[in-house]
Amino acid sequence: MSRIRFSASSGSPMGACAPNDDVPAQWHDDDKPHEECGVFGVWNTKGASALTALGLHALQHRGQEATGIVSYDGERFHTHKGLGLVGDVFGDASVMATLPGHSAVGHNRYATTGATLIRNVQPLFADFEFGGLAVAHNGNLTNAETLRKALVRRGCIFQSTTDSEVFIHLIAISLYASVEDRLIDALKQVLGAYSLVALSRDALMGVRDPLGVRPLILGQIPGEEGEGPTWVLASETCALDIVGAEFVRDVEPGEIVVINDEGIRSIRPFDSKQSRFCVFEYIYFARPDSVMDGKAVYDTRKQIGVELARESAVEADVIVPVPDSGVPSAMGYSVASGIPFELGIIRNHYVGRTFIEPTDQIRNLGVKLKHSTNRPVLDGKRVVLVDDSIVRGTTSRKIVDMVRAAGAKEVHMRISSPPTMHSCFYGIDTPERSKLLAAQHNLEEMAELIGVDSLAFISFDGLYRALGYKDRQGACNRYCDACFTGDYPIELVDYNAENPTTPA
Amino acid sequence: MSRIRFSASSGSPMGACAPNDDVPAQWHDDDKPHEECGVFGVWNTKGASALTALGLHALQHRGQEATGIVSYDGERFHTHKGLGLVGDVFGDASVMATLPGHSAVGHNRYATTGATLIRNVQPLFADFEFGGLAVAHNGNLTNAETLRKALVRRGCIFQSTTDSEVFIHLIAISLYASVEDRLIDALKQVLGAYSLVALSRDALMGVRDPLGVRPLILGQIPGEEGEGPTWVLASETCALDIVGAEFVRDVEPGEIVVINDEGIRSIRPFDSKQSRFCVFEYIYFARPDSVMDGKAVYDTRKQIGVELARESAVEADVIVPVPDSGVPSAMGYSVASGIPFELGIIRNHYVGRTFIEPTDQIRNLGVKLKHSTNRPVLDGKRVVLVDDSIVRGTTSRKIVDMVRAAGAKEVHMRISSPPTMHSCFYGIDTPERSKLLAAQHNLEEMAELIGVDSLAFISFDGLYRALGYKDRQGACNRYCDACFTGDYPIELVDYNAENPTTPA
Amino acid sequence: MSRIRFSASSGSPMGACAPNDDVPAQWHDDDKPHEECGVFGVWNTKGASALTALGLHALQHRGQEATGIVSYDGERFHTHKGLGLVGDVFGDASVMATLPGHSAVGHNRYATTGATLIRNVQPLFADFEFGGLAVAHNGNLTNAETLRKALVRRGCIFQSTTDSEVFIHLIAISLYASVEDRLIDALKQVLGAYSLVALSRDALMGVRDPLGVRPLILGQIPGEEGEGPTWVLASETCALDIVGAEFVRDVEPGEIVVINDEGIRSIRPFDSKQSRFCVFEYIYFARPDSVMDGKAVYDTRKQIGVELARESAVEADVIVPVPDSGVPSAMGYSVASGIPFELGIIRNHYVGRTFIEPTDQIRNLGVKLKHSTNRPVLDGKRVVLVDDSIVRGTTSRKIVDMVRAAGAKEVHMRISSPPTMHSCFYGIDTPERSKLLAAQHNLEEMAELIGVDSLAFISFDGLYRALGYKDRQGACNRYCDACFTGDYPIELVDYNAENPTTPA
Amino acid sequence: MSRIRFSASSGSPMGACAPNDDVPAQWHDDDKPHEECGVFGVWNTKGASALTALGLHALQHRGQEATGIVSYDGERFHTHKGLGLVGDVFGDASVMATLPGHSAVGHNRYATTGATLIRNVQPLFADFEFGGLAVAHNGNLTNAETLRKALVRRGCIFQSTTDSEVFIHLIAISLYASVEDRLIDALKQVLGAYSLVALSRDALMGVRDPLGVRPLILGQIPGEEGEGPTWVLASETCALDIVGAEFVRDVEPGEIVVINDEGIRSIRPFDSKQSRFCVFEYIYFARPDSVMDGKAVYDTRKQIGVELARESAVEADVIVPVPDSGVPSAMGYSVASGIPFELGIIRNHYVGRTFIEPTDQIRNLGVKLKHSTNRPVLDGKRVVLVDDSIVRGTTSRKIVDMVRAAGAKEVHMRISSPPTMHSCFYGIDTPERSKLLAAQHNLEEMAELIGVDSLAFISFDGLYRALGYKDRQGACNRYCDACFTGDYPIELVDYNAENPTTPA
Repeated sequence: MSRIRFSASSGSPMGACAPNDDVPAQWHDDDKPHEECGVFGVWNTKGASALTALGLHALQHRGQEATGIVSYDGERFHTHKGLGLVGDVFGDASVMATLPGHSAVGHNRYATTGATLIRNVQPLFADFEFGGLAVAHNGNLTNAETLRKALVRRGCIFQSTTDSEVFIHLIAISLYASVEDRLIDALKQVLGAYSLVALSRDALMGVRDPLGVRPLILGQIPGEEGEGPTWVLASETCALDIVGAEFVRDVEPGEIVVINDEGIRSIRPFDSKQSRFCVFEYIYFARPDSVMDGKAVYDTRKQIGVELARESAVEADVIVPVPDSGVPSAMGYSVASGIPFELGIIRNHYVGRTFIEPTDQIRNLGVKLKHSTNRPVLDGKRVVLVDDSIVRGTTSRKIVDMVRAAGAKEVHMRISSPPTMHSCFYGIDTPERSKLLAAQHNLEEMAELIGVDSLAFISFDGLYRALGYKDRQGACNRYCDACFTGDYPIELVDYNAENPTTPA
Repeated sequence: MSRIRFSASSGSPMGACAPNDDVPAQWHDDDKPHEECGVFGVWNTKGASALTALGLHALQHRGQEATGIVSYDGERFHTHKGLGLVGDVFGDASVMATLPGHSAVGHNRYATTGATLIRNVQPLFADFEFGGLAVAHNGNLTNAETLRKALVRRGCIFQSTTDSEVFIHLIAISLYASVEDRLIDALKQVLGAYSLVALSRDALMGVRDPLGVRPLILGQIPGEEGEGPTWVLASETCALDIVGAEFVRDVEPGEIVVINDEGIRSIRPFDSKQSRFCVFEYIYFARPDSVMDGKAVYDTRKQIGVELARESAVEADVIVPVPDSGVPSAMGYSVASGIPFELGIIRNHYVGRTFIEPTDQIRNLGVKLKHSTNRPVLDGKRVVLVDDSIVRGTTSRKIVDMVRAAGAKEVHMRISSPPTMHSCFYGIDTPERSKLLAAQHNLEEMAELIGVDSLAFISFDGLYRALGYKDRQGACNRYCDACFTGDYPIELVDYNAENPTTPA
Repeated sequence: MSRIRFSASSGSPMGACAPNDDVPAQWHDDDKPHEECGVFGVWNTKGASALTALGLHALQHRGQEATGIVSYDGERFHTHKGLGLVGDVFGDASVMATLPGHSAVGHNRYATTGATLIRNVQPLFADFEFGGLAVAHNGNLTNAETLRKALVRRGCIFQSTTDSEVFIHLIAISLYASVEDRLIDALKQVLGAYSLVALSRDALMGVRDPLGVRPLILGQIPGEEGEGPTWVLASETCALDIVGAEFVRDVEPGEIVVINDEGIRSIRPFDSKQSRFCVFEYIYFARPDSVMDGKAVYDTRKQIGVELARESAVEADVIVPVPDSGVPSAMGYSVASGIPFELGIIRNHYVGRTFIEPTDQIRNLGVKLKHSTNRPVLDGKRVVLVDDSIVRGTTSRKIVDMVRAAGAKEVHMRISSPPTMHSCFYGIDTPERSKLLAAQHNLEEMAELIGVDSLAFISFDGLYRALGYKDRQGACNRYCDACFTGDYPIELVDYNAENPTTPA
Repeated sequence: MSRIRFSASSGSPMGACAPNDDVPAQWHDDDKPHEECGVFGVWNTKGASALTALGLHALQHRGQEATGIVSYDGERFHTHKGLGLVGDVFGDASVMATLPGHSAVGHNRYATTGATLIRNVQPLFADFEFGGLAVAHNGNLTNAETLRKALVRRGCIFQSTTDSEVFIHLIAISLYASVEDRLIDALKQVLGAYSLVALSRDALMGVRDPLGVRPLILGQIPGEEGEGPTWVLASETCALDIVGAEFVRDVEPGEIVVINDEGIRSIRPFDSKQSRFCVFEYIYFARPDSVMDGKAVYDTRKQIGVELARESAVEADVIVPVPDSGVPSAMGYSVASGIPFELGIIRNHYVGRTFIEPTDQIRNLGVKLKHSTNRPVLDGKRVVLVDDSIVRGTTSRKIVDMVRAAGAKEVHMRISSPPTMHSCFYGIDTPERSKLLAAQHNLEEMAELIGVDSLAFISFDGLYRALGYKDRQGACNRYCDACFTGDYPIELVDYNAENPTTPA
């Protein structure tokens, strides 16, 4: 889900008029694309909100800025939301006690800022004529602003700046009677990449967009004798593992699953289409121990490293990952190249929410809060640095400088994705094209800007080979790789309206 | 404005599903009726929000639980709200710095509870197609719930449980084009007693209900040479004094004043009616240094004491007020009776927001946190206690017991209002009829229950004589005194719908 | 107790090196002398800390900045302290639950500032070889700094900047064996005006300085059958009333009372001296419903008003008190003069801990946060303002200006104390002499500076007549009135050491 | 430094009588020994406190519960302390602004608990006759309680329960005149393992205990032209790297370095002894990119893995580290054995300060908040798990269970330290002997209890070979390995006094 950026006079919400969109620097300075959200839902279990908190904890990598849970106890819905990590927001037993019930949905959010934006934290909840509904979603609507303007014109009052609220209002004004029909009515009006969990009095629902760009999986905990099973919906399989649930299947692209005490039903309101799962989930977003769309993420990353070593071999003394995401690819590269794998860069995980704003003096010291070099491993060596992507290139430059300062004789950078040349409009926070290094420079320029002796990205064919295909052609458009190719499978309605002449 | 109490499944707001309507005990234990809110608005001045904070501070007696300000800086609206006193919420210069602009509206609120109800704190703000609008109101709509149900059915999503939000949605869905026309459209649909200030990009607006039950006054600070004046709207004149504004006039019943840089315009969308100002403002709510509807509150109270002494004389040694509200009437009673006025009860003003929940042991000690007796003044004396009203009678009983424990030989209670026999539906928080002492008992029974040697209330004619009329008849229905008479001048739509057979 | 102001390098405490002695403006802007502390202790009752919290609440007027309680449960001592009012710090049942035990001591503190100074909040507690001891005191030692320097030289490490800690270290290093003997040893080394309550494992102790400058009284709640009584020590009788205790007697000057399960013992380690009770307690500090040293405070104040009217009559239309402290004297003045008493100035009690720092614009509006004028009472009138004292004169000037702005034709100021010409070193926070208006100007100049048509103070003889003596002579030095006379009954050791040539 | 646990009646500090020693569960549930503290000091630089915060951030692994900095600005000392990570406590620029000065000392603390224990957070500061002194220390005194008792008997009042305060009081009561002489006087009375940094008005001092058990290193940032260098003292070299300082040398065992504007002086008040550096720093505590006592920690750990593979080979399919500390040894094991290294266990770094207290239901699910298994890597495999130590064995058991649940066919555990059979009294938080698995069971029993197919620890000789010696004999008692051998090089005074018959 993504923030819509609109002018001050339209759409800003009741009770909080001047949103501040600055995000604390250190959350962005790693210069990575950022997944915007993880979702989790559970039906039919004691302590539904505790299970949800655990599931959200396992999905913490998909959003660290805020989190929320709505539970339903058969009579009332209960909400708790907060800024911070799942463990901080839900760590207190007294908080969990305010969330009773046998069903719940939860959400991890990337990139809110400041106390006032608590109203943007999901799940959103609304009370309709037919009862309450809580909605949490991961992804981005490409026509959200267009829809929002029409809704505001009609008299709808928005509280947040999230896409989810567009869903909520579309459901509220639908002329259909049942929640399901209203949900379908709403879904037919939106365009975009999204996975959505929703909780009403009667059912837990899960939806994946028609192309299945964003992930959503279904799991189950067998019930005690005489009781029905507990159903789980989650963004990734790692959230099933932590609650002891078994993987059942992916929710299918364009499918609505409706879970209630009678069991699970499937609704497919859309015409069948070729699915286009986000390939970047494999490269960077997903947790390495997740299995996505039938493929183990860790294995895939290692295999990309193997392909990368084959394509872009270089004589060197050590293979050093940029931790943590570069580790599996570096291991694969090491195995394929026979060059030793070493932890030449140490990551400091104790980075709090804020940190000292450096004075010039300190900035000049080249301080790195997150990474430090392991000098004995680097000194005098020819180093291959393996990382997963280059966005702006700013962090890459700093890391290369650190590695050279630690004595590296040569530094070769190998990237386990193709060059990121286009913005994502499907739920990933990427800068606009003009700030993407690969969109502005050729390989040689990039190598020079980053300060390396050589630079190579995995090829498209190499990437798809690592995914088990013969080459990109062989994958038959099975994935969305628009950030590399510019081939956008879902129409960019809002973007095109605002930028009539500039292709994304 | 008042909270609507509705069942869990309807109308409860997005993101906060289980409102908790318990109010901390000590805020209610004085057993007084409570005014529900003060409003303030200012146009055309530097530091509009600082002036608003001062005005709200002067109106603090009209609501102590929460407060909020919305300012407009020519481009954006800015909001800050909080639970607590004005000085606590706006005492920080860094908070005031977030509220720039030359116009602002503010609100003091009685009786919210708990952190989650911050969304009920006014002013409410919404962004419409035509721009933002902030609304703060004092009073109560008698058809709010009926309207709310219809709006929810239409697809409107409510965020708060306040009447103000009904206004907001009526404005949002109006088919008229201009803010003014939309406001009039909304006002024509609501019934009730209310004073309202609203701030748009283009104007500060003030509205008083057609009968003028709740107060709203207009003031002015002359502008520097070549500049227009600063306009102020406020619930009471004491809020003009604190900001150095001069009283211009009362906003008239049914009048909309529209203030912008061109000056002030008046719109009267309603048919002319007999006004019915709330008589209880004189007796208890208003600050003694305010002038309401042309009459000084302090003088009126003293005069009621004079009338009371004439009507219900008693031989006694000292006249003792129940502080603070009983003081002027007791002074009048003393002057008229020639019996000395003494401070026999001391009020402790240092009562924090919460206090120790008494154990049984402490409760048995007859602890009084707010009042203590001044024994040397009471010991061995025949005491006339003067208070402004009796609601449930619980506090009166405790005070009488305290006074007797301090040695009073006789205790006579004199009340500066007629017996409170009916609930208020026009913005005053009163318990339901079955809990009103005077609705359940005759004078003799009341005296016995309260434990006094004699009890007398001001007569209707005495009350109106103190207000300058010959008698009640002579006041020609110029006031609303429904809480004493049951003569409700505005239809009780919601109440009648829910209680088809029980008169209010 | 008072803060010692010392240079940065000596005596500042472990763990907090840079005390900030700025006090929020609004706590001082009333330009009154400030009592520095109230103390309370209780022995042998269930819920000792709840009783202590109630007693401290009744003593809130003696200190509003911070409060603390230490209880003893037979095994361990328990402490809770906080900045703010008693109701705020101890309002939470969960806090009270952390303070179990049948005995407790508590303290209200005036004039701490900032979160870091929590270590200055009393009672102080120390664990000695012989067990724990909690000490709370009201007053000021005149040789505290001299003692502190000697103790630091000896190797004692101070944690706070309070006089109480000097007691603590003197007790710690005493060579005597028992707590009592160590306490006496410590008391013999200190000079000053103080009342002290202390709690050990074995006893509750109360001490009054040899001249009895500061108050301390003893009360009792009769025990249930077969149980001993509950004993109470408190600064004023109003704290007995709130807990339902009966007044037994004043602790005598120079007396140590030791209360344990065997009953109460009295130790008198000092030579008998003429007692010198602080006369300002009657004029301003004490609560009007307290009885001090056998005299009712309220009556005394009224009587001062009577004497003042006799001494300094003036033709006028209304007598107006500066609330709240001027009220009883104004009543007495009104009775004696026959001129009506009216509430011409209204006090706003809703002043939070901080308030908006006024911009120049607002400051120029002459804003008064605490007081407002009741115009109808003042307009066109000859007004006698009655106040209790003039310190710097700044507030008096503002109030006179307000009263004139409200239309008063003449303003006459009458003060119920003699001119404050000297600083207090015995526990009252007064500015240095150079800032005392009466120390720098004669009566005529003062009247002009304050802006009144006439100004009069009660005479010394009038003051003592109100206290029941023939004249000052007749009171035979029964009181300390050093702030008016400069006659300091206790040697100013520290002051004289630092100001060898300037008399206080 | 370590908390002394004493009975309620002795030594508990002023103002906080009932310490609560429960530590949040999740900080201990990893069942590792815990380093108790990191120290940092800097002399002669702008923004000394910012540099200190950075240094403490790099040392965060040595203590995560609390942190503090004392700076000196040439006139005053300034302190800020807080519970939480360095980035949380010092992340706010406004906080850093309260810590001006060109010199500072700081401290990271392991294992405080609860808000009230803020007084235990170091550096401790005291104001002496000769000026202020701030002291921070890492380690543990073996005669702290004995000294404390004597000091309390003498009249010293303790504020904290830390060993550092014993230093402070010993310095305070010393009869020597200069800070240095007083420090030496104090050091001669204490026994234990400690590294200490202290800051006075005149100098930054660093001390290492006579055997050099705990680390302390000296670094330097060259000064600008004409200015002296900036000196840095820190627990580990990684703290030099982050501030851009160059390693100068280890502070030597028993050495006091005194740094002031004249340069650096060395004092050696103790007789020369064989140094005994803590071998566990290499195995677990130190950051892998630190160099300790001339040896790179990362290399040493890898080499232990190599030795372990040689000593305890096993046929297997994958080598899996228990992250993060087991990674380098597992890499070494993989290299030496030729069996592939795989990330079969994923660590979740987003663990907040608290987490949901599991209900029974959740507990039964076998939830792991910190670790999850990467099933595809483990399923059907013979797995060698490499970890650094086994303390109680509880976590090992859970991890083995997880690995088996993920499908592992065989699980072999290899530990990169000898069996932990004795408690540490020199600054490492270990449970008492009766809870150490290796102290209670032989190898076979341990393997069964942990649930592995085989279990092996590195041998003593293997460990010392990895450190570059021929065998343990060859290391000539160069290290303290008391936790493995029970050979305690410093007398356990307190322990022996309390446990006269039970050897440690």
